[in-house]
Amino acid sequence: MAMNVVVMAAGKGTRMKSALPKVLHRLAGKALVQHVLDTLAPLPASTRIVITGHGAEAVEGTCQGQGLRYVRQMPQLGTGHAVQQAVPVLATDAPTTLILNGDTPLVQRKTAEALATACAGQRLALLTVDLLDPSGYGRILRDPQGRVQGIREHKDASPEERAIREGYTGMMAAPTALLVRWLSQLRNDNAQGEYYLTDIVAMAVAEGVEVVATRAGSETEVLGVNDPLQLADLERRFQREQAEALMRGGVRLADPARFDLRGELVPATDVEIDVGCVFEGRVELGEGVRIGAYCVIKNARIAAGAVLHPFTHIDGETTGVEVGEGALIGPFARLRPGAKLGRDVHIGNFVEVKNSTLAAGAKANHLAYLGDATVGERVNYGAGAITANYDGANKHRTVIEADVHVGSNCVLVAPVTLGQGATIGGGSTISKNVPPGHLAVARARQTVIPDWARPTKIKP
Amino acid sequence: MAMNVVVMAAGKGTRMKSALPKVLHRLAGKALVQHVLDTLAPLPASTRIVITGHGAEAVEGTCQGQGLRYVRQMPQLGTGHAVQQAVPVLATDAPTTLILNGDTPLVQRKTAEALATACAGQRLALLTVDLLDPSGYGRILRDPQGRVQGIREHKDASPEERAIREGYTGMMAAPTALLVRWLSQLRNDNAQGEYYLTDIVAMAVAEGVEVVATRAGSETEVLGVNDPLQLADLERRFQREQAEALMRGGVRLADPARFDLRGELVPATDVEIDVGCVFEGRVELGEGVRIGAYCVIKNARIAAGAVLHPFTHIDGETTGVEVGEGALIGPFARLRPGAKLGRDVHIGNFVEVKNSTLAAGAKANHLAYLGDATVGERVNYGAGAITANYDGANKHRTVIEADVHVGSNCVLVAPVTLGQGATIGGGSTISKNVPPGHLAVARARQTVIPDWARPTKIKP
Amino acid sequence: MAMNVVVMAAGKGTRMKSALPKVLHRLAGKALVQHVLDTLAPLPASTRIVITGHGAEAVEGTCQGQGLRYVRQMPQLGTGHAVQQAVPVLATDAPTTLILNGDTPLVQRKTAEALATACAGQRLALLTVDLLDPSGYGRILRDPQGRVQGIREHKDASPEERAIREGYTGMMAAPTALLVRWLSQLRNDNAQGEYYLTDIVAMAVAEGVEVVATRAGSETEVLGVNDPLQLADLERRFQREQAEALMRGGVRLADPARFDLRGELVPATDVEIDVGCVFEGRVELGEGVRIGAYCVIKNARIAAGAVLHPFTHIDGETTGVEVGEGALIGPFARLRPGAKLGRDVHIGNFVEVKNSTLAAGAKANHLAYLGDATVGERVNYGAGAITANYDGANKHRTVIEADVHVGSNCVLVAPVTLGQGATIGGGSTISKNVPPGHLAVARARQTVIPDWARPTKIKP
Repeated sequence: MAMNVVVMAAGKGTRMKSALPKVLHRLAGKALVQHVLDTLAPLPASTRIVITGHGAEAVEGTCQGQGLRYVRQMPQLGTGHAVQQAVPVLATDAPTTLILNGDTPLVQRKTAEALATACAGQRLALLTVDLLDPSGYGRILRDPQGRVQGIREHKDASPEERAIREGYTGMMAAPTALLVRWLSQLRNDNAQGEYYLTDIVAMAVAEGVEVVATRAGSETEVLGVNDPLQLADLERRFQREQAEALMRGGVRLADPARFDLRGELVPATDVEIDVGCVFEGRVELGEGVRIGAYCVIKNARIAAGAVLHPFTHIDGETTGVEVGEGALIGPFARLRPGAKLGRDVHIGNFVEVKNSTLAAGAKANHLAYLGDATVGERVNYGAGAITANYDGANKHRTVIEADVHVGSNCVLVAPVTLGQGATIGGGSTISKNVPPGHLAVARARQTVIPDWARPTKIKP
Repeated sequence: MAMNVVVMAAGKGTRMKSALPKVLHRLAGKALVQHVLDTLAPLPASTRIVITGHGAEAVEGTCQGQGLRYVRQMPQLGTGHAVQQAVPVLATDAPTTLILNGDTPLVQRKTAEALATACAGQRLALLTVDLLDPSGYGRILRDPQGRVQGIREHKDASPEERAIREGYTGMMAAPTALLVRWLSQLRNDNAQGEYYLTDIVAMAVAEGVEVVATRAGSETEVLGVNDPLQLADLERRFQREQAEALMRGGVRLADPARFDLRGELVPATDVEIDVGCVFEGRVELGEGVRIGAYCVIKNARIAAGAVLHPFTHIDGETTGVEVGEGALIGPFARLRPGAKLGRDVHIGNFVEVKNSTLAAGAKANHLAYLGDATVGERVNYGAGAITANYDGANKHRTVIEADVHVGSNCVLVAPVTLGQGATIGGGSTISKNVPPGHLAVARARQTVIPDWARPTKIKP
Repeated sequence: MAMNVVVMAAGKGTRMKSALPKVLHRLAGKALVQHVLDTLAPLPASTRIVITGHGAEAVEGTCQGQGLRYVRQMPQLGTGHAVQQAVPVLATDAPTTLILNGDTPLVQRKTAEALATACAGQRLALLTVDLLDPSGYGRILRDPQGRVQGIREHKDASPEERAIREGYTGMMAAPTALLVRWLSQLRNDNAQGEYYLTDIVAMAVAEGVEVVATRAGSETEVLGVNDPLQLADLERRFQREQAEALMRGGVRLADPARFDLRGELVPATDVEIDVGCVFEGRVELGEGVRIGAYCVIKNARIAAGAVLHPFTHIDGETTGVEVGEGALIGPFARLRPGAKLGRDVHIGNFVEVKNSTLAAGAKANHLAYLGDATVGERVNYGAGAITANYDGANKHRTVIEADVHVGSNCVLVAPVTLGQGATIGGGSTISKNVPPGHLAVARARQTVIPDWARPTKIKP
């Protein structure tokens, strides 16, 4: 059943105290409104309408989805006024119009579907939720037969009505034709001078149109974000849910309360993740991968059996990082975009790798930089070795063929090629190619000055 | 209304199992007793008296505040005995004497004020608290009219009295003249042989002096610290309160349960702080600053738009650290005292900066050390470059003028100046000044030895 | 009273979704079944039997303990069938047989002792637990006199029986001779076709053998592990217990919820541990040691007064690491096996030390590598200095005698000795011994090329 999907995203979010429009604040690294759009994406919609207002250009520039249409609500004169803006672009042949909030990021697809189904182009379906503490929510009023009669705002509710635990979530599905007519009949003769979408409930009841309530599956999925405390609270709920889903799938988390996933984690079996790790973008973890404490990993593929020691920082940005089977990385290693490490590669402490390919068994274990390099199998890249890949204007490549041994604190001035099996003496600056199997040294002769008097402390 | 302020800080804190006097244990980086003194500082006091005992010298050497006076209680013969020591230095023209505990760090100023106001030089005002579980607390006994009649110790309480949920916090405000007289009448004919301050309640009642109870605003503010579990519990409560206050102000915390502030954070708008950050001293964060996961920052000013990547460690100690607008720092960067980074400076992984000024656009992106250096605009400080600022006895400065390009693994032997636009070849040790625009190289000629036989593994 | 100890460890743990047998999953770094074996080790047992099945070889290869005997259950036909496999190796002269689960890692020794005592070779003693939510547990049925009459499986229980909060934990102690006979009488005529150990309860009741229930001290100690969620939950409970025990002993933890100990921590007094630290193996902390945030420490002895700054990573593996009194380590330091640091040694940021001894007062403060080195007192090991200890085939030692000053970015090509008080000029590669007191330099002459034209950006 095709429908109109309307997402309200015009609010400012004053209590966020931010220059960013409320719906662009991020939960698990993604804008609130984008969570809603992604959840709704699989639903068969004729039209997907985002109502923007505060920061409209920013919101419209951020939202991604198939065939989104934007309408602007300016000024903002209430929720009913917001939906009125969508009327001109509603598909009138779609019998149901689903109206969700852009600041309620965790609403579930099945809940949206249930809401649309309850409407079925005939009924006004309200999404409600049973709350331990419904303070602040509009209460769902029902007649003795249990039929929904209306919504009472918290501030207008009598003590008996305040005892009602079923609250309105701000989301609904309405028959499109009726909705259009009801919207045209809204009035703003209230204290705020606003047009309230909820006023259509009374219109439906008055006209004998059935009003039904669809209960949300959990409180979490209907929680909105109005300030940074609520944002942090939802973030933790969402992270907990993600952690539990991964654990049910077999991932072993040392502490689900110290796990952050802002994107997608694709684990094979027997993956272990220690405390405090943060994942962003898309991260694939092969069988038996072990991630040490406090690793921060973005956009990377880690093959089976690889071990990331604590404090490994991987940022694949858009290019991605690949870590081969059985590789050992860290601690305190940093892999940057374009790092492609083969099987059994070792990258040790205080080593940075960027836009470089390391073949199987290559090692850079200590305090080193590999940038724009092609490194062959079994290369031993010494402590303190640096690829001087940048001449101040252009980047050049360094090629280190298989079985090369690069000594400590060497500088490899790119472009340069070290032939297979070559050896580079420690402390050498190499700016010319080295033939295979040769030893290259660029080192001053060691001289000594006997009985040298050290400087002494100058009195200040 | 000027008053006497008395803070009891003589206890040993046996259950802390520490050589440190109890009140010197730190909550959020500050001694427990200092929290109390800071809270009370704005109150108009004639005299501020700290009663010391165990570790008196250490306590007296630590406490800071306007016009503190110390009296020592040795030996410790009870709470009444403690306050008796303060009598000689009480300002008798101050009608009210406020008595607080040095191990109850989170008492609120408005609570102390309310207690003093309730006393008003006329009534004995007890600070009480309603507790879900009042076990261990003395209970507040009231007559049928609700007037306070006394305090019953937990161990002496009948079952009915134990059902009372209002407990005494150990803090009070008393009319000064009456207090002095009552203290002189205390007796120690009890099992412990101690003089109890609470015995003055019965004296007040007997004399018809009104006894009133002032309820604390929360349990947290009257919790004392007696062992490391309670200290950790209070630490977490305090950190949670600080986190919530910051979030209400607009700061976006990824996880308020993983946020530690031991000092003062001064945020502008749209500041984001990722999980696990620790702040100490005074830290200012400009508009839109983003702090990555696991940053540890002490005494620093971070200007608008700067981004600190994960694992950035800043320790400004007393000198302070400044990070300019739009600067990018980390991951794995360390900024030490006197690091002053201009606009758009980049400090990358495994880079240490100490007592150095970097002008706008300067970059030190990889494995480098800058100590006692003055770095001009747009300088590119290569990977592995080191300022040899210490000759074993004295520190010297390195001056790197604008647009200099320092190659990889260079050593700059201070004092030395690299003129504007100079270039230093990779691997060079530079001990003499380089004129502007010149290329300086100190590099041995590259030689090769063909068909060099590598060492082979020695059989053990 | 000697007994038979039987640990059931044959299960697959399907919901773990792991290739590892369930009982080999680790809690606090140790296999679940090993926790049970270690807890039971002090009990006077004639025989200790581990019943293996899934992954039997792996389990048998992992379990450690005095005189363990293994029996295999293949295929797995129920808990009764499991214990039947142990019958041939039970010591018949041990009157009591204690049967525990290998996947219930936190069972307490005193509980096991109480269970054995309750049996006393005469009674069938069941370990039970009172649960807020006993769903899924078999309920303990008692007669009006409170005598245990049987166990009702949750799925077979009536509503009244489901209201019973006392559940069976799967652990018991039985008179050995009776157990052997009862096991031989088990039948598998049930829906699962399995032999249930719990069927012996009915046999005992029928024969008039007294059945008694021993209540566990807490729910935590009887919780089993069936999936990664339960494993993580138990991990956190265990870590919390360890943290509280340490705090009661005087250790000050900044946040007990962010503390992980996978092994043994041996603290002296006045130890402070900041947030997020992870300890593995055996770690000794001397008086007044302060551990900064996010330190990861394995197998190390840290002497009194030492300070570990944040992000210090110590991994002593089997060799161990020693840190001397008053040493200052980190931030971002890494100490590897065989690092032995004397009194007041300083190891600073981005420094790695492996298999090296540093005498009192030696310093390596910045970006350096010390491997296979012997470093004398007061040595100053400069920024970027590297011991080239590996020639591609063999490791060699570097000896740096007392008071040597090694300049920045030096390479020390081992084997090499720097004599007492020698000075090594910055940027030198030293491959020959340096006599005491001499200055050694291996440095090319600095040359300049005036008005050097930098490369310009190549248009792509």
